Amino acid sequence: MSRSTEVSIRVLDGTVARAARDTVAVEEPLELRLRAGGETRTLAITMRTPGNDLELAAGFALGEGIVRARAELAEIVGCDDGSVTIALAAAAMPQTAAFERHFTVTSACGVCGRTELQTLAERVAPLESDLRVGADVLYALPERMRAAQRVFERTGGLHAAAAFDARGTLLAVREDVGRHNAMDKLVGWAFMEGRDLRAAIVLVSGRASYELAQKAAAARIPVLCSVSAPSSLAIDLASAFGLTLVGFLRDRRANVYAGAERIVAT
Amino acid sequence: MSRSTEVSIRVLDGTVARAARDTVAVEEPLELRLRAGGETRTLAITMRTPGNDLELAAGFALGEGIVRARAELAEIVGCDDGSVTIALAAAAMPQTAAFERHFTVTSACGVCGRTELQTLAERVAPLESDLRVGADVLYALPERMRAAQRVFERTGGLHAAAAFDARGTLLAVREDVGRHNAMDKLVGWAFMEGRDLRAAIVLVSGRASYELAQKAAAARIPVLCSVSAPSSLAIDLASAFGLTLVGFLRDRRANVYAGAERIVAT
Repeated sequence: MSRSTEVSIRVLDGTVARAARDTVAVEEPLELRLRAGGETRTLAITMRTPGNDLELAAGFALGEGIVRARAELAEIVGCDDGSVTIALAAAAMPQTAAFERHFTVTSACGVCGRTELQTLAERVAPLESDLRVGADVLYALPERMRAAQRVFERTGGLHAAAAFDARGTLLAVREDVGRHNAMDKLVGWAFMEGRDLRAAIVLVSGRASYELAQKAAAARIPVLCSVSAPSSLAIDLASAFGLTLVGFLRDRRANVYAGAERIVAT
Repeated sequence: MSRSTEVSIRVLDGTVARAARDTVAVEEPLELRLRAGGETRTLAITMRTPGNDLELAAGFALGEGIVRARAELAEIVGCDDGSVTIALAAAAMPQTAAFERHFTVTSACGVCGRTELQTLAERVAPLESDLRVGADVLYALPERMRAAQRVFERTGGLHAAAAFDARGTLLAVREDVGRHNAMDKLVGWAFMEGRDLRAAIVLVSGRASYELAQKAAAARIPVLCSVSAPSSLAIDLASAFGLTLVGFLRDRRANVYAGAERIVAT
């Protein structure tokens, strides 16, 4: 149960590339279960960094109105299978329909990272694009995305996802308060326009989570870049599906976490 | 259907406070529905910035493996009630159990912002804390949170949520790849320790979304600060529930989006 893990990366620094080690945040699914009156049910599955899982469960239960006072809680128990069970003091399962209908359903995930990657493999084939991208093309992307964003409102509160061709020409940019929504809009634009993203590079403004890597693989995008850090599970997915994953793309530098063969340094 | 909206704020700049207008990103729920063979069902509810909703629906359907090719899609139709329906060409509703069990359930929301605030009001009372916080106390918080984070691994990929007392003394900090998880861990820590957050200030590292504001209100936290931008729905919630919402807290400056009476400039 560690919060971070070491990975082998390729560092791009101007026209130089070298092997290095990097530390990334661990992202793993946690299943939250609710138990009352001898009955147990799945409440939610969240992608989280391991550690303080019982607190996470307690905070979730409080935030959703499942418990309001410490006395309503019998115990919170963590299991080795990646789940935490919130046991209520109540003799019967509460009428959960009230909060259930208000849960937001978002991204796909399973109960553990390996299971999820296996499940994803049933419907998503590995990426086999022979696209090659020069590091200089990558270095130019963040400024091009920012320039395109200036056309829209500048609130400081919007995430962006942008698609570029192999030469770094902007194809489209989409914005949203949620990173996954910006990515869905971008992918949906290409899908509805009949545009092929098999030779495209996508840049996202935030961190590269498992969810974003999964959406890129499903949309057959071979190169996913982020201006910030990737999670451990995003790297695992990228390695398993042949997705090139670039992080910390800024100031003519970048870290390549997977699929480095597609990036040409000089 | 606008992407941003103007709000009245109070700007804190050193020891000076003044009224101003600010532009914030709109955040609103969107219900995604799936229709096939005369049957319609709710697929997901996502908090998004309005605009390109049909693309969002198409990208979501592709990412989740509900459709793989344009021909599988009959049409995508947006309704005024805040929903988008994905109509499949298939004569019958697909066996959705396969993808359904992999959906992550996260935060609470309704089908429109007003409905959601009304629903939340049924279980969360307005905050009535008479806490007063000096601007100088706020200005010191980001550096204190960063200093506490240095104790943990530095991956560049973790969000943080920290609780402080009214004098700005750090009570606890929690980290996670997800902002909502960091907040759940922090709130869960207080809940399990029997700590009262009714006189606490909470600082989050990312943007202040509806979800974070909702978790703060449910945990009876009177002052929620962010180093970045809030969403429109976070501000609406803060105003409705008496939560003080501070954004862009950095470099001895801040914007107060709601509950400014709790912040003393000089």
